[in-house]
Amino acid sequence: MLAAVITAFGGPGVFALDEIAEPAPGPDTGIVDVTLAGVNYADVHRRRGEHEQPPLPAVLGADVVGRRRADGRRVAALLPAGGGYAQVAAPLRRHTVPVPDAVTDEQALAVLEQGLTAWHSLHTLGRVDGDDLVVVTAGAGGVGHLAVQLARWAGARVVALASSPSKRAAAVELGAHAAVDSRHPDLGSAVRQALGAAPTLVLDSVGGETFERLRAALAPFGRIVAYGGASDVSTTVAVDDLMTASTGVLGFRLQRVLDDEEIFASSAARLFHLAGRGVLRARIGGRYPLGAVGQAHADLEGRSTTGKLVIDVHRFG
Amino acid sequence: MLAAVITAFGGPGVFALDEIAEPAPGPDTGIVDVTLAGVNYADVHRRRGEHEQPPLPAVLGADVVGRRRADGRRVAALLPAGGGYAQVAAPLRRHTVPVPDAVTDEQALAVLEQGLTAWHSLHTLGRVDGDDLVVVTAGAGGVGHLAVQLARWAGARVVALASSPSKRAAAVELGAHAAVDSRHPDLGSAVRQALGAAPTLVLDSVGGETFERLRAALAPFGRIVAYGGASDVSTTVAVDDLMTASTGVLGFRLQRVLDDEEIFASSAARLFHLAGRGVLRARIGGRYPLGAVGQAHADLEGRSTTGKLVIDVHRFG
Repeated sequence: MLAAVITAFGGPGVFALDEIAEPAPGPDTGIVDVTLAGVNYADVHRRRGEHEQPPLPAVLGADVVGRRRADGRRVAALLPAGGGYAQVAAPLRRHTVPVPDAVTDEQALAVLEQGLTAWHSLHTLGRVDGDDLVVVTAGAGGVGHLAVQLARWAGARVVALASSPSKRAAAVELGAHAAVDSRHPDLGSAVRQALGAAPTLVLDSVGGETFERLRAALAPFGRIVAYGGASDVSTTVAVDDLMTASTGVLGFRLQRVLDDEEIFASSAARLFHLAGRGVLRARIGGRYPLGAVGQAHADLEGRSTTGKLVIDVHRFG
Repeated sequence: MLAAVITAFGGPGVFALDEIAEPAPGPDTGIVDVTLAGVNYADVHRRRGEHEQPPLPAVLGADVVGRRRADGRRVAALLPAGGGYAQVAAPLRRHTVPVPDAVTDEQALAVLEQGLTAWHSLHTLGRVDGDDLVVVTAGAGGVGHLAVQLARWAGARVVALASSPSKRAAAVELGAHAAVDSRHPDLGSAVRQALGAAPTLVLDSVGGETFERLRAALAPFGRIVAYGGASDVSTTVAVDDLMTASTGVLGFRLQRVLDDEEIFASSAARLFHLAGRGVLRARIGGRYPLGAVGQAHADLEGRSTTGKLVIDVHRFG
């Protein structure tokens, strides 16, 4: 099979198209003939050799859609250990989920990983309901634009934060009641004004000062869910402050969903159901041939795209 | 009217029975002819002059039950600024709630302040449901023994922590499925064993090391609600740790309920309804005449009692 392989860590130029052996099925894995592979920012970190380094040569890529070889069924799968930028992948069976006919390959890929983060941050940790006044940071981002739609679907009032007029317009087009400049000098007041009252639920992927300001803006009994920290500031919270304000801080990382077969399967199925109904519409940022994975990485790093980048593993240049 | 007055801060001996003027009704307050006044640990702090000091001479006492003079109706009220150890009190109307016939004066007094803390910690912040595996620290304490009953009523599995065999027996008698020694050297394991799995919701009034250990023991997507800190350790939590574990920390302080008329009224009515049905049975630790408020304080400080201490303002010695 063909795969985009790296033999060294580094810039987007380290990928090379290569013919390698298909992955062997194991007792807990199943073979998937891949149609599309997704590109995620975590892949960029892995390519650079930051955080945990995979053994080289390596095939990166953490999500695929394709057909399960055993029964020909269309499935999507997550690959936390990589292996996605290839024509054949061997995901764990418990990380594989059927894709309904009503959901396209691109939508399945764009909804799965980012949608699970949005879903569990909003529902499992945040316990969103229709009374909530919700703020979503990076509201036009990969997770954020799905969180905006899911919060709206839950009946909440939603304000999206974004750094540019076009991103703010995109968030409003997706259902946010309003959008606020994420660099507003008085973010708490701006958000309160846009919501008509203090936020009761904040979904934050930015961290640092944005996290601090939005936490301080929470209504009594409000909570902030941190599901990522694009900024590297290591933020701490005093429990006394949480008591005085009567608010909460919750964290989310997708690994905990991957650890739990039942939660993964039920929430992934729920997301695909919503995508099939058109409640969730994921943005697709670009489609690249397998030979242009490096270009996809460069575009993602350059922040020149918005939406999920997908790799067509059967086109080569 | 007669009141237990302090003219200086200090030990339990500072109280003196005195005839003083009735409080005058204001635009937002109503006169209550008091039957029983409650004694709370916060009164001890105020008597000692710790934290905010009331102007002297002062009448302490933060909760009463009696009859509203305007209509003769039995009511209970909270008095965050004091004034309870007296035959007449003037609570804010929005901190006054009717007491159903099925609820005795003692139960009304014992359920209101501590019950509101238990209710909002469990429900408003903790979002308890029947799938939860709950730990209640100080499970035989004023708030704790009500939280055990409310968590059980919500359908959860409940483990109470307490420091003595008799307190543990009391918690089990009130509905805890099991009780664990709060000084167990491996508290996390002991709690997991008693629940059959990692806790999904912890209610903590202890703070410090107990808080840290129980937070570390939480299941993924679990949360710990801090509603008090008997220990004075100022605990902080790293948001990164919450993300890695996918857990949450929430705080509660009763003031935020006192700030919100609608939430106060609806949750107080709910608690009295449950007390009237016998779902909530508050423990009464002792009944003292108005002239023996000092003795009640001494007993509370000496931890020689369990349950709510109440003052009969029409008995004097």
